[in-house]
Amino acid sequence: MPGDSFGHTLRISTAGESHGPGNVVIIEGCPPGLALSEADLTEDLVRRRPGQSHIVTPRDEPDQPEILSGVFDGQTTGTAIAILIRNTDQRGRDYADIKDKYRPGHADYTYDAKYGGRDYRGGGRSSARETSVRVAAGVVAKRIIASAFGGRVVGYVRQVGGIVAEIPDPAAVTLDQVERLPTGEPNIVRCPDPDRAAEMVALIEQVREERDSIGGVAEVVATGVPAGLGEPVFDKLKADLAKALFSLPAVLGVEYGVGFGAASLRGSENNDLFYATAPLGAPSGAAPHIATRSNRHGGMLGGISSGMPIVVRAVVKPTSSLPREQETVTRSGEPTTISTKGRHDPCLLPRFVPMAEAMVAIVLADHWLRWRASGRSTPA
Amino acid sequence: MPGDSFGHTLRISTAGESHGPGNVVIIEGCPPGLALSEADLTEDLVRRRPGQSHIVTPRDEPDQPEILSGVFDGQTTGTAIAILIRNTDQRGRDYADIKDKYRPGHADYTYDAKYGGRDYRGGGRSSARETSVRVAAGVVAKRIIASAFGGRVVGYVRQVGGIVAEIPDPAAVTLDQVERLPTGEPNIVRCPDPDRAAEMVALIEQVREERDSIGGVAEVVATGVPAGLGEPVFDKLKADLAKALFSLPAVLGVEYGVGFGAASLRGSENNDLFYATAPLGAPSGAAPHIATRSNRHGGMLGGISSGMPIVVRAVVKPTSSLPREQETVTRSGEPTTISTKGRHDPCLLPRFVPMAEAMVAIVLADHWLRWRASGRSTPA
Amino acid sequence: MPGDSFGHTLRISTAGESHGPGNVVIIEGCPPGLALSEADLTEDLVRRRPGQSHIVTPRDEPDQPEILSGVFDGQTTGTAIAILIRNTDQRGRDYADIKDKYRPGHADYTYDAKYGGRDYRGGGRSSARETSVRVAAGVVAKRIIASAFGGRVVGYVRQVGGIVAEIPDPAAVTLDQVERLPTGEPNIVRCPDPDRAAEMVALIEQVREERDSIGGVAEVVATGVPAGLGEPVFDKLKADLAKALFSLPAVLGVEYGVGFGAASLRGSENNDLFYATAPLGAPSGAAPHIATRSNRHGGMLGGISSGMPIVVRAVVKPTSSLPREQETVTRSGEPTTISTKGRHDPCLLPRFVPMAEAMVAIVLADHWLRWRASGRSTPA
Amino acid sequence: MPGDSFGHTLRISTAGESHGPGNVVIIEGCPPGLALSEADLTEDLVRRRPGQSHIVTPRDEPDQPEILSGVFDGQTTGTAIAILIRNTDQRGRDYADIKDKYRPGHADYTYDAKYGGRDYRGGGRSSARETSVRVAAGVVAKRIIASAFGGRVVGYVRQVGGIVAEIPDPAAVTLDQVERLPTGEPNIVRCPDPDRAAEMVALIEQVREERDSIGGVAEVVATGVPAGLGEPVFDKLKADLAKALFSLPAVLGVEYGVGFGAASLRGSENNDLFYATAPLGAPSGAAPHIATRSNRHGGMLGGISSGMPIVVRAVVKPTSSLPREQETVTRSGEPTTISTKGRHDPCLLPRFVPMAEAMVAIVLADHWLRWRASGRSTPA
Repeated sequence: MPGDSFGHTLRISTAGESHGPGNVVIIEGCPPGLALSEADLTEDLVRRRPGQSHIVTPRDEPDQPEILSGVFDGQTTGTAIAILIRNTDQRGRDYADIKDKYRPGHADYTYDAKYGGRDYRGGGRSSARETSVRVAAGVVAKRIIASAFGGRVVGYVRQVGGIVAEIPDPAAVTLDQVERLPTGEPNIVRCPDPDRAAEMVALIEQVREERDSIGGVAEVVATGVPAGLGEPVFDKLKADLAKALFSLPAVLGVEYGVGFGAASLRGSENNDLFYATAPLGAPSGAAPHIATRSNRHGGMLGGISSGMPIVVRAVVKPTSSLPREQETVTRSGEPTTISTKGRHDPCLLPRFVPMAEAMVAIVLADHWLRWRASGRSTPA
Repeated sequence: MPGDSFGHTLRISTAGESHGPGNVVIIEGCPPGLALSEADLTEDLVRRRPGQSHIVTPRDEPDQPEILSGVFDGQTTGTAIAILIRNTDQRGRDYADIKDKYRPGHADYTYDAKYGGRDYRGGGRSSARETSVRVAAGVVAKRIIASAFGGRVVGYVRQVGGIVAEIPDPAAVTLDQVERLPTGEPNIVRCPDPDRAAEMVALIEQVREERDSIGGVAEVVATGVPAGLGEPVFDKLKADLAKALFSLPAVLGVEYGVGFGAASLRGSENNDLFYATAPLGAPSGAAPHIATRSNRHGGMLGGISSGMPIVVRAVVKPTSSLPREQETVTRSGEPTTISTKGRHDPCLLPRFVPMAEAMVAIVLADHWLRWRASGRSTPA
Repeated sequence: MPGDSFGHTLRISTAGESHGPGNVVIIEGCPPGLALSEADLTEDLVRRRPGQSHIVTPRDEPDQPEILSGVFDGQTTGTAIAILIRNTDQRGRDYADIKDKYRPGHADYTYDAKYGGRDYRGGGRSSARETSVRVAAGVVAKRIIASAFGGRVVGYVRQVGGIVAEIPDPAAVTLDQVERLPTGEPNIVRCPDPDRAAEMVALIEQVREERDSIGGVAEVVATGVPAGLGEPVFDKLKADLAKALFSLPAVLGVEYGVGFGAASLRGSENNDLFYATAPLGAPSGAAPHIATRSNRHGGMLGGISSGMPIVVRAVVKPTSSLPREQETVTRSGEPTTISTKGRHDPCLLPRFVPMAEAMVAIVLADHWLRWRASGRSTPA
Repeated sequence: MPGDSFGHTLRISTAGESHGPGNVVIIEGCPPGLALSEADLTEDLVRRRPGQSHIVTPRDEPDQPEILSGVFDGQTTGTAIAILIRNTDQRGRDYADIKDKYRPGHADYTYDAKYGGRDYRGGGRSSARETSVRVAAGVVAKRIIASAFGGRVVGYVRQVGGIVAEIPDPAAVTLDQVERLPTGEPNIVRCPDPDRAAEMVALIEQVREERDSIGGVAEVVATGVPAGLGEPVFDKLKADLAKALFSLPAVLGVEYGVGFGAASLRGSENNDLFYATAPLGAPSGAAPHIATRSNRHGGMLGGISSGMPIVVRAVVKPTSSLPREQETVTRSGEPTTISTKGRHDPCLLPRFVPMAEAMVAIVLADHWLRWRASGRSTPA
């Protein structure tokens, strides 16, 4: 039964497993005339790539994308774009043990329950390798929103274990701050608060040393988004963003604006007050340019973008695969133990950031195209 | 641009505004042969209904459903079910002030930005009245999962302001505990921890007194759900549940299992260990009956149900409408103030519970039907 | 299993049976700002209405539409439009005989096979009453295409039995010619060739006299449609038009342009040759205004509109219900006979015309909105 | 805007152009446990393949499929199947002339109108090369229906030019008769009436000699299909079959059963009378086994399969590309002429047969899976 497609007017469909020949994405709905090359796709793929630093999995995948269709003479044609990323580092022997045992925290058991069997060489469809082609599609989506309304999506690590970054203004964080420390060195944990970044790296090194893993929170900010994106009922922008982020592996929660903090706020504390502002170069519409003095609503009211920065957060659980013995059962229910010998990330967050950015960008591009269909000339 | 439909194989489409003639839902995909009457629908509608207690809005709506199609001789026919709930208490005069002013926290401005205008007599499509027909559809969905696998969905209020209920075992909470106090009186706040329930009622009375409002958290638990529901990639069960809950008004965050608590856990603390268990009367499958010793994963692994209770939470913001002056602007950008004179809930949580249950039940029924299509005879 | 919805960006969902309380349609995606009233809907509803002339069924249904949502102050709001048409003439006694017998040519048996039962008071969902709300939705679609690009959809009866109308230029046929004879009298058979119209009426009267029925062909022409509507692969304009027309009851075939005549043509006879033409007031695009010297391609090339008139035809079978004894079986397989005593059309074509127009208009409006999303400013 | 996907519960999405790296299909919804190999796919691909005989295009494409995902240990896993077919014979030089000229009968102009440009090296998405991956997906669909209910889909050429085959019993035609003459030689035109087949070959040779092309009609028959497949309103089986066939290049019309012949029939001539029949080994249901004495309804009543053979026909226009000068215009509207020098089929029908079979099988497999979701245990 389907479930490998996402989006309405910009739609992506993926296929592929961690240990098969490769992963592929079909992107429908990309407008014609956007410049696009395989090198463009690589920009974000290297941020998701295994082996990029000493705090992520050492699995070595070049993640070289091949554009199979939809691009001609360096530009999108408007027809379906297909991108293939072949798997190269498929060391099947690392996974032999999991053929008959259920790894705690993984989808081995639930896949068996659903399908009556599974590709036991790895996580199959539940593997994070599937996200490689989502990241490639995210590059296309970022191009669409940048060209359409100057939209920009930047994600970063907000929390690892008990360490929480201080981000005075989420909308001011730049990609450069996420990728590079003030010293010029790579910001391998992708936290734009340099002090907290150093602490996070130390914590990740420690848990790896202890043959354990650690969770965290990523924050994604979209700026330049005009007011008016999102549909009023089921396809609220917040609902589609939540589905997009929850569709990524290991995500246990999503919130926007004040999020769960709203439970203990009063309405008089929570409401963001409107005021009129001068045009900011955004596409003009019939309505005046209106903003709010605070952004506890995370850029969405009634599920529709307000013109304020969109701020969403996702919590990512600690990696389930652990290089230590854990109790479990075999497929036939016999008690046993398992120690995952594969090469895994001690913390998923650094590589999660480009995945989350991609999904946010895809939702925004989809809703932009949906907006175009809806009748007014431009959003406010 | 549509976005008034939800679900894939069980699909609901709604239409209607707060101050128009009424709201209608079309339910596609309900199997034939289920007993269904208008009285059945009323069971949950009275739980969502305005005016049900002194801590909710005094707006008086009987919410009487009319089944227009899809039921014959007291049973579903298998064809599309349509349910109409007419609006009766449409005091347009209460809303005259909002024609030209943007209410803080509401969708007035974003609707204007999206559509270039709006039905200014109320919230239009963004009103919680739209959820009346969702609750009716939820009754149908509850029937489907009850008859298919003995599934049961119970929601309750977990938190109001700083008051957090103690729920030792979410899966043990009964509808009766949610609806009735040990004294036999109605549990008007729908919190199954009676001491916290009393505190919550007092807090809600206090904020209303202070012409303010308060947020909170609802928790929904689904039991009896077999392992194997959910699709592996975009339509993960967790992703569809999150979208379903985020599509409700005022929801700012959703989490399942340990949720945001996972950020500070280690893998060795978070993983739930598998063990084999005796059959529980659930439909049998090829796989042995497997369970986990704890349920930090909230009943879903890899986005697919594990057979453990599904536990999800949603945070609901404090009501935006406040009977006190708040700064805002007019449609033309002039500074002004607004004090909402309509009849509003000081806390949305008590009436949110049946809405959240309905959406969870709809997702489970949809994925059950999707599962039926997928090839094996029964889930594990 | 759904299948009660049609369209992608303009989407309609229907519910209702012939003998239930009524039929309802939800229309998603209609742009805001279009004038719309219940009286507007009636314009086409009276053309589909039973009892409109002596050559159609005498069943008496006023088909009075009620707009439940999506219209405010006489204009569409951009949100979902719901329209309800109640059934009034439900003479259940006419249908008692069919409870246990399968009517030849009807869906009684196939519904039983699909659902294990059916609403035996009439055709249920297979009844042409379901099309009443499609015709109402078609009025909305006609408004969209008229306001967007001056599009116009006119249908008429091309053939009844062996009588084939001469239509020298399908694109020149007017609604007035379809509805009114040169004498000023109503053109009750809706054939714009007056001589053939008279013959068709006589034939229909004769078959009714003989307690029989007769088939025919309707032709629908859309003019003013810009080049560029339709998607390149599965959602070709021709494919969506065909699905739309085949979704109507009793349609056994659809063709466009030369249609089945192409089987015996050579390429040199069939190809339409391009030439450049002066702008016609259509929205301007990058491409020059190009036309073809003939229109054997029926206005679509590669499944995309060419700017030439779109010409499609549907064949409609003779009414299956006959007031004469026909052999059949009971639900338990016993041989029996049945003579349908209901009030039925001796020829479906006159009332089929507005249904076919509606479906064509819905497809064009949908593809127009899809086009708007796709990236260029205006079609050629 | 999407349009590269087809189907609801079995869904295929394609991408690829005639002169890009290749074509790919993602198949969602295939049940787990079906045997599948690349060799299986080749069975039908060689029937669609260019260069298979002297009456089709001499373009040489091996059409070697690569399964990228969804198959493990020789069986489908239940997750998305991706199949890649690379293009190898991309002689771009043959197409240089069409960069600036619009080929009569082709989609060059309509693509320019839609997208503002096109991949001028060939037909791009409108090329019949896109159908290669549909044929591969069709093999998967044929496996599904064969294993589910013994369904079988056989297509053949019914007409070429004025030559019409005599097929006494469409349901009795075998794949072997379609592929092989009584002499044992290949039946290169795929017409199971050997005398007409010889005449068709002669006619095709003649039109090629005359640098022309010729149209025809293909007929597809599905047998073993249980009663009860298809949805009652928009997704009638007949509607989805029509859309499927109209989505193929060059199709100008589709009909089933008596088709356009119904226009001149009376109801008493057209109705097929029911009678009870002994079980045929089909899955048993509550309803008795019922059949009709004739099959003018082509196996579908009310849009739902009746258990009788499904018989559909599609008319295919003569190839538009002609190796002779035809009048046309350049992109800027200048009059010119064009003679297509590429290698083209003088008649599309022989290679159309496997494409049509694939689309019919995909629709039937989709509706079978939809049926599984719907509630009863098995169709009648």
